[in-house]
Amino acid sequence: MGQEKERKCLVQFEPSGLRVEVPAGAILLEAAHKAGVYLTSICGGDGYCGKCKVVIDAGQFKSRPTALLTPEETRENIVLACQTRVLSDLTVTVPKSHTLETSQILMDSDARRFSQLKGEAEAGLFEFDPLVQKLCVEMSAPTVRDHTADHERLYVAIRRVVDAPIMQTGFRILQKLPSLLQEAGYKVAVTVGRRGGTTEVIEVDPDRGCKTNFAVAVDLGTTTVVAHLLDLNTAETIDTEATYNSQINFGEDYIRRIIYAEQNNAFDQLQDRIVQDVNNLIVTMAARQKVDLQDITAVICSGNTAMVHFLLNLDPTRIRREPYVASAGFVPPIRAAEAGIQINKRGLLYCLPSVAAYVGSDIVAGVLTTRIYTKNEISLFVDIGTNGEVVLGNRDWLVCASSSAGPAFEGSGVKHGMRAAAGAIEKLNILTDGTVEFTTVGGGPPAGICGSGLLDTLAELFVNGIIDRTGRFKIGKDERLSEGDEGWQFQLVAPQAGQREIVITQADIDNLIRSKAGVFAAIRTLMNSTQIKPGDIDGVYLAGGFGNFLNVERAVTVGMLPDVPVERIHFVGNTSIAGAKTVLLSRKALETAEEIAGKMTYFDLMSHPEYMEEFIQAKFLPHTDLLLFPSVTVADKV
Amino acid sequence: MGQEKERKCLVQFEPSGLRVEVPAGAILLEAAHKAGVYLTSICGGDGYCGKCKVVIDAGQFKSRPTALLTPEETRENIVLACQTRVLSDLTVTVPKSHTLETSQILMDSDARRFSQLKGEAEAGLFEFDPLVQKLCVEMSAPTVRDHTADHERLYVAIRRVVDAPIMQTGFRILQKLPSLLQEAGYKVAVTVGRRGGTTEVIEVDPDRGCKTNFAVAVDLGTTTVVAHLLDLNTAETIDTEATYNSQINFGEDYIRRIIYAEQNNAFDQLQDRIVQDVNNLIVTMAARQKVDLQDITAVICSGNTAMVHFLLNLDPTRIRREPYVASAGFVPPIRAAEAGIQINKRGLLYCLPSVAAYVGSDIVAGVLTTRIYTKNEISLFVDIGTNGEVVLGNRDWLVCASSSAGPAFEGSGVKHGMRAAAGAIEKLNILTDGTVEFTTVGGGPPAGICGSGLLDTLAELFVNGIIDRTGRFKIGKDERLSEGDEGWQFQLVAPQAGQREIVITQADIDNLIRSKAGVFAAIRTLMNSTQIKPGDIDGVYLAGGFGNFLNVERAVTVGMLPDVPVERIHFVGNTSIAGAKTVLLSRKALETAEEIAGKMTYFDLMSHPEYMEEFIQAKFLPHTDLLLFPSVTVADKV
Repeated sequence: MGQEKERKCLVQFEPSGLRVEVPAGAILLEAAHKAGVYLTSICGGDGYCGKCKVVIDAGQFKSRPTALLTPEETRENIVLACQTRVLSDLTVTVPKSHTLETSQILMDSDARRFSQLKGEAEAGLFEFDPLVQKLCVEMSAPTVRDHTADHERLYVAIRRVVDAPIMQTGFRILQKLPSLLQEAGYKVAVTVGRRGGTTEVIEVDPDRGCKTNFAVAVDLGTTTVVAHLLDLNTAETIDTEATYNSQINFGEDYIRRIIYAEQNNAFDQLQDRIVQDVNNLIVTMAARQKVDLQDITAVICSGNTAMVHFLLNLDPTRIRREPYVASAGFVPPIRAAEAGIQINKRGLLYCLPSVAAYVGSDIVAGVLTTRIYTKNEISLFVDIGTNGEVVLGNRDWLVCASSSAGPAFEGSGVKHGMRAAAGAIEKLNILTDGTVEFTTVGGGPPAGICGSGLLDTLAELFVNGIIDRTGRFKIGKDERLSEGDEGWQFQLVAPQAGQREIVITQADIDNLIRSKAGVFAAIRTLMNSTQIKPGDIDGVYLAGGFGNFLNVERAVTVGMLPDVPVERIHFVGNTSIAGAKTVLLSRKALETAEEIAGKMTYFDLMSHPEYMEEFIQAKFLPHTDLLLFPSVTVADKV
Repeated sequence: MGQEKERKCLVQFEPSGLRVEVPAGAILLEAAHKAGVYLTSICGGDGYCGKCKVVIDAGQFKSRPTALLTPEETRENIVLACQTRVLSDLTVTVPKSHTLETSQILMDSDARRFSQLKGEAEAGLFEFDPLVQKLCVEMSAPTVRDHTADHERLYVAIRRVVDAPIMQTGFRILQKLPSLLQEAGYKVAVTVGRRGGTTEVIEVDPDRGCKTNFAVAVDLGTTTVVAHLLDLNTAETIDTEATYNSQINFGEDYIRRIIYAEQNNAFDQLQDRIVQDVNNLIVTMAARQKVDLQDITAVICSGNTAMVHFLLNLDPTRIRREPYVASAGFVPPIRAAEAGIQINKRGLLYCLPSVAAYVGSDIVAGVLTTRIYTKNEISLFVDIGTNGEVVLGNRDWLVCASSSAGPAFEGSGVKHGMRAAAGAIEKLNILTDGTVEFTTVGGGPPAGICGSGLLDTLAELFVNGIIDRTGRFKIGKDERLSEGDEGWQFQLVAPQAGQREIVITQADIDNLIRSKAGVFAAIRTLMNSTQIKPGDIDGVYLAGGFGNFLNVERAVTVGMLPDVPVERIHFVGNTSIAGAKTVLLSRKALETAEEIAGKMTYFDLMSHPEYMEEFIQAKFLPHTDLLLFPSVTVADKV
């Protein structure tokens, strides 16, 4: 057996042709990771999501029996890569659905969608004072009457242009400063970066290129990583790009990824993945806009606490263990190169501050963007992603919590769920004659259903009496209800030439209800704790990657949001990246974000006795207690 | 000829046995440098100091003719290493006078002398608040009710102990922090260092060893490097050590060293020398006191501007060229390891701020130590080293200047001059019967004359009428006057068994008078510019390596210092290191030093029309204008 393990097998993946050598007995999913082949995997290799299907074309292998494959699939040598061991040289075909190429095409559309941010206009409320600036600085050369040393001469000149009471200069910059100043005739471009209360001289160059200073804002989502390229001289967003978080191979949610990293001592690998994702986004935008990477002097990141930990390779393991502690909430600015991010080698990497292990800087960014921390009235901020985070409060107080809602509204755990990418059903109605009417992202044939479409589907099935208040299909009510492989399902789109069948299953509906119940229970727990009634809430801000045609009314219909007048509910899109950009462009905004993070009181729902009770009550449509949803018309009072 | 240069010759130096291979035609002095052999050299290889004498035992060489060698010496194959080219393999004997071993023995005594600092008691005037501190920090471990992240938990704990509004932590420390805190049970030793307005977390260790924190203060003299080892927990100086500045091979004064470095692109080499000197001092003290180098967390340096530039490898070349500009006056703290200094690898290196190219941080240290910046009355501070720097002022204003006095009072350019080391005549009187009475450092037989002895000699020769007011020997006045190889000389010590003859020559006296005249002219120029009269001066503080038995009255007799009552004149020793220690032990003292440096107005004497006139007038004993020295009795009114 020992000897057996020594034997090497060559695995070739088609159609990419990528190859990797692994010891006999290796898991095929890991071989794919090693080869750089992207395989969809939601459960992180535990063998229950059934997403990592591949076809073995040639060679010997051994697969664990699984109910996730039909006998037909097994006959065709289709296997779950995570349940298959390599026993000889193999040739493996990766179905097109896995490939990054496909993802990439979808992401182009994603990026455009994410760039339309309602919160973005708010950035202008802070004075323009970017965290990193390139200053055109002109000094008079030393004379007998003015023999100020070069270092102090530069400081005086910088202070004429920006407010910088405390300054720092790296040793290498200091060493090269005199020759540089002389060669440039004391006319230079100085890049300064703000680090806490200190201003660092990051770089000194001859003054050509003084006008080219760029930065990248990144939303580190568990599922999707979005980046915007900004011109720091004009404050304009000049490009956007998005990609799937390629850590997804190690688990759909970040808890699974932490477990994977811990069990396999793969923290470096996890960091590597997310860093490469960020680098790819940066390089793609820079190439497209013909921006020199050396002219990108800052990257600012916003994301959940775990993602920030992965990016910086900070120990994330206690995020998942009581008492749920982060390694750092307020991460100091570091040299981007220290984390492996390939911009100017002395450029800075900033991370927005987070509140707790389960309320990350993306939520702080949301509070900043929606400005609920400035208002006299009470606001509610809800961010639906892989988790559902909730913030309640006003200028005087802010409370927050995270529900492990699960990624159902991101399309995961839903048979035909998908992200808000090309072909996704983003809007859906069931007409009085029973016809299902829908629109897709990009207008093409439907490929699946994204968040806003799923919310519509759940609401329409309920309003039209196809499901009852517990979410159960009313069997016999509609001929499109049938029993499939995975139990009862409702056909939303019938199969035609060039168009697949799209259904929603009982399991999908249960998942969606669990998600919305988790979110609503979190909202209720915070409201109860602070004695806030729905009528007290002046504004509800819903953030997340639903897609831009989110019908916010539906969120009340299904009981995800409290029953407030619909005009008070605002879909604000990706506030994580909007907040990151706001902070990037204003030192005052960063200070404000830090104040917000310091001020937000975190409620740990896991240890909160009321939460589970609220959750159970919220598992009805819209809720057990119909008095909480007077505006929702309920056909049958179960 | 091209081929000739390719040929390699092996040069062996005795008695050390050190060898080096050099191309045929190489200069022997440079071969010695390359071999790591210490040769005394004052002129930096220009062939006029005659100090780099060695004996060629075997092999071929070619020497330029020189008047500095007697025909006898030439017959014995004694050569000036700087004027000799290597033509074949050579064996060379280095006379004992050159060897570091001898220097080392002398330095032990030097170190003891330098450690007796009158200014040191003043340090206590600043609150004890060292630049680097090791704090014992105990935190409660995270709980469900207190899930503060580790990074912020540490900050809160540090801020309970010290004032640190703005903090920074390096990325590597941040990464290892969580595991370290957990392993240590949240009880750690935290080393924090002050960097401008920022407090940096330098290191986090388990709390054993919380009590061992050391630092080294260094006076970077052009001739001598002095270091003190301090216990940062008790503020005590636990050891002292000194060595010659081994850059001396490249020139006696720093201007020559800058020229050498420029001509030979030897900046790295110059840095290497001084860094190694500092490292040797640190290692010597650490070994003797059984201090782990890892427990030395800071080094603080004070010295002239050029020496600080050499230490940090900052471009010093414009120090010697109009308009005489430094690369940096206020050098930010850096990682000591960045400069090659071998203490804790994350320990900090601080440099005191300087005023100008020719008024360095040693002078700022002097002002700090003597506290003249706090006084209502006018004070005069004079530091006699290789240069003579002068500061005049009070709490409201400070003016300063540097005279290129030359190192005569350090024993250079004086036939039997030497530093204040074992055997140096430090006190000398000529009795009424003409007998020369003297005491030596260590009490042994006289080896030469140090600064205080030279001042005595000049004053006694003058007071006893052996020289006239211009410094000329009165030929025939005393039988000890004779004509030697270098012109007229006066025999101070007659040769006996085991005791060498010690003389002072006309050239020596001319050098000493030039030095004192330079200093006095600088003082007068500052006094004239500020309209200060001698009677306005409340205190005169004389600093330098004269030796502890300096008779300050003599400094008035020869006209080096203005004629103020002798009780107002204080010899303050090495204020450079005293100031460095004061700053090391108190953040407030560093701020004060920065304020002082910012406040001092520099007078460039080279471009000052009055200075040369004052210098010419000061070349008399005590001065051309005797009305300036009413207390000095002058025998003959020339």
